[in-house]
Amino acid sequence: MSGSNIFYAQSGGVTAVINASACGVIETARKIPTMGKVFVGKNGILGALTERLIDTSKESRRDISMLKHTPGGAFGSCRYKLKAPETNQREYERLLAVFKAHNIGYFFYNGGGDSQDTANKVAIFSQRAGYPVQCIGIPKTVDNDLPLTDTCPGFGSVAKYVAVATEEAGLDIASMAATSTKVFVLEVMGRHAGWIAAASALAQKTKGDPPHIIVFPEIVFDRAKFIAQVKKAVRSNGYCVVVASEGAQWPDGRFLAEADQKDAFGHAQLGGVAPRLVDMIKQDLGLKCHWAVSDYLQRAARHIASAVDVAQAYAVGEAAVKFAAAGDSGVMTTIERYSVKPYRWRIGKVALAKVANVEKKMPRRFISRSGFGVTAAALEYLRPLIQGEDYPPFKAGMPQYVRLKNLLIEPRLPAFEPE
Amino acid sequence: MSGSNIFYAQSGGVTAVINASACGVIETARKIPTMGKVFVGKNGILGALTERLIDTSKESRRDISMLKHTPGGAFGSCRYKLKAPETNQREYERLLAVFKAHNIGYFFYNGGGDSQDTANKVAIFSQRAGYPVQCIGIPKTVDNDLPLTDTCPGFGSVAKYVAVATEEAGLDIASMAATSTKVFVLEVMGRHAGWIAAASALAQKTKGDPPHIIVFPEIVFDRAKFIAQVKKAVRSNGYCVVVASEGAQWPDGRFLAEADQKDAFGHAQLGGVAPRLVDMIKQDLGLKCHWAVSDYLQRAARHIASAVDVAQAYAVGEAAVKFAAAGDSGVMTTIERYSVKPYRWRIGKVALAKVANVEKKMPRRFISRSGFGVTAAALEYLRPLIQGEDYPPFKAGMPQYVRLKNLLIEPRLPAFEPE
Repeated sequence: MSGSNIFYAQSGGVTAVINASACGVIETARKIPTMGKVFVGKNGILGALTERLIDTSKESRRDISMLKHTPGGAFGSCRYKLKAPETNQREYERLLAVFKAHNIGYFFYNGGGDSQDTANKVAIFSQRAGYPVQCIGIPKTVDNDLPLTDTCPGFGSVAKYVAVATEEAGLDIASMAATSTKVFVLEVMGRHAGWIAAASALAQKTKGDPPHIIVFPEIVFDRAKFIAQVKKAVRSNGYCVVVASEGAQWPDGRFLAEADQKDAFGHAQLGGVAPRLVDMIKQDLGLKCHWAVSDYLQRAARHIASAVDVAQAYAVGEAAVKFAAAGDSGVMTTIERYSVKPYRWRIGKVALAKVANVEKKMPRRFISRSGFGVTAAALEYLRPLIQGEDYPPFKAGMPQYVRLKNLLIEPRLPAFEPE
Repeated sequence: MSGSNIFYAQSGGVTAVINASACGVIETARKIPTMGKVFVGKNGILGALTERLIDTSKESRRDISMLKHTPGGAFGSCRYKLKAPETNQREYERLLAVFKAHNIGYFFYNGGGDSQDTANKVAIFSQRAGYPVQCIGIPKTVDNDLPLTDTCPGFGSVAKYVAVATEEAGLDIASMAATSTKVFVLEVMGRHAGWIAAASALAQKTKGDPPHIIVFPEIVFDRAKFIAQVKKAVRSNGYCVVVASEGAQWPDGRFLAEADQKDAFGHAQLGGVAPRLVDMIKQDLGLKCHWAVSDYLQRAARHIASAVDVAQAYAVGEAAVKFAAAGDSGVMTTIERYSVKPYRWRIGKVALAKVANVEKKMPRRFISRSGFGVTAAALEYLRPLIQGEDYPPFKAGMPQYVRLKNLLIEPRLPAFEPE
């Protein structure tokens, strides 16, 4: 046993419910007598490297409970990725030094595929270095692209936001279409996986309802086919609602929204598919179009979070602590769907090595034959994930989101400069 | 008395609560024995010209009550504007012919400034033509730019949406700013008036909170000043949230988002301020940016409507019927704020002639000295308008919005081709 304190960090893009996972970790650890304090990395893993550790024991029980309904990353997150220990042993040694200095024996890393990979490497490195740290991954990604878990906390709430936005904007354009705007294009997130775009189909109640076209990153974009589909939808319904994934790609693999920046993980930073599709529609069909890009709004929209998603986000954090207390390491907590009708889920676990850097795309059987819609199987998978509303408390017209004190503990080591 | 039936039409861009006004009209008329049926123009005033009249007596009480929580325009709207009777007498004569044919003695027109102008012209024309129709305007516009009413139904809900979105996206970018995105730009509606952009300031709880910069159409855009402001915000807070009105203008009056289309009222169709501002920031400061354009999402977002706005939207519809029953004509129903603290409002009325084609911009005293923020007076005005939540009912994870039957009555006149 290396130490009783916990180090928890949020990693990568934040979500509407990642703080619910933090809440699950902190509230559960506070209840287990063998668990020490929960320290959180200021700005994610960088906080560990730079020894900027937030002492959550200084936060009130009420403030911690408010994390459950507060979007964003309450302690800061980052897109910093540790390289492999073989090429960057220095950072792993530093991590262990910080863990030792603060009596940390548990590392909970809340993130996507890259972070699960890092958690796995830290587990192995710490074992070899003779200071074994129990490393547990906690899944998080709006992209829903982690394997071996039924879904990823964060996704259900984006899915609900996108489905509601599609229905609402659909009613708006339907009102105006006879004499004005004929096409509405909504751009949503999803670099390589079309899960978020697919969720817009949950807005469909009867035949002809929006969205009429979904543009997936999994299906190579074909301008002629796309334009024909728009034309057909306008002819049938009087208007057309398109939901397009930011990751939509040309046959040569270039993104429709050409990348002009990359993030620290080497991923292209996207944005701008909607105006590009609108340009094509105007050029080819001369129709009046409107477009929206929801960007951060979709993943921060805690006000319309899915109750199922909030419960799962909390549960994967809670379970991480319980698994660790029971001796587990090198695993990620997962969500298992053990009943389809009615929908039932429970928490499971899977070896980090199996999760690391595997991307779960939409299976082809979830995408309709045309490539522009989803199948009944996709809807059956998606629908349970947006069930229930979990409104934050409001005061004076605005949601009551918590701002923590985020007090740092005294550093005990010399300064360190990350790569 | 020309007839006991009512003609109601929705005009221009729809809102999250324009159907609540329709609900107020229909439910109230059903209760008054001297009032006949409520006919609604299919696609707004065009429905009257083409004699496509929806018979709301065919809709169930439950479906009509669901209008109160359904966004968009349930009967269709349009941007068709009647010209002055002097140049286009034909259309006014046709309107009266349709009204006569269907025993219509009341015309309720639910729209913005252009529509109030039309309602006024119809009132005068019908009087002169010896078939006096009682014309009552019902205010509606997300832009909040109608004069002589404290606010316009539709605005309070967009204001709430934009304030909530700004707070949520602000928490998101604050989480990531240390190592990633430094600037987030949210583009909102508002062609000539910055009311919607101003409402984002309701997200501020403590000093340094987003939005850090608001770009108003009322303040000529100055790139150097804007960039200096972004730089300052990033230095002070680590990040910067910009909320920009689609109507932001260069000193020569051109829109930042150059218009490439105009709507039927001759208004430029806008969109694209956010990516333009982001280009400037990247060029001048080299900062990583994200941007969102909420477009229809903001005005259709019934799921996060303001309870005050919903109540006012219903009340202006209800009052229109009551005023008409009492013999009024040539007036618009208004909202009067008769107490500031606590906020209290009641329904009033004003002559249509005073409303027609007057645009209420943000007063300079509502905009801070720098031109990039709002004053305490603005916040005092805005805050009451977003009070209270009025969630629609949800079923299976999605809001329950009504789709009416919209049955047309049998036409009695020869066909007519609008201009």
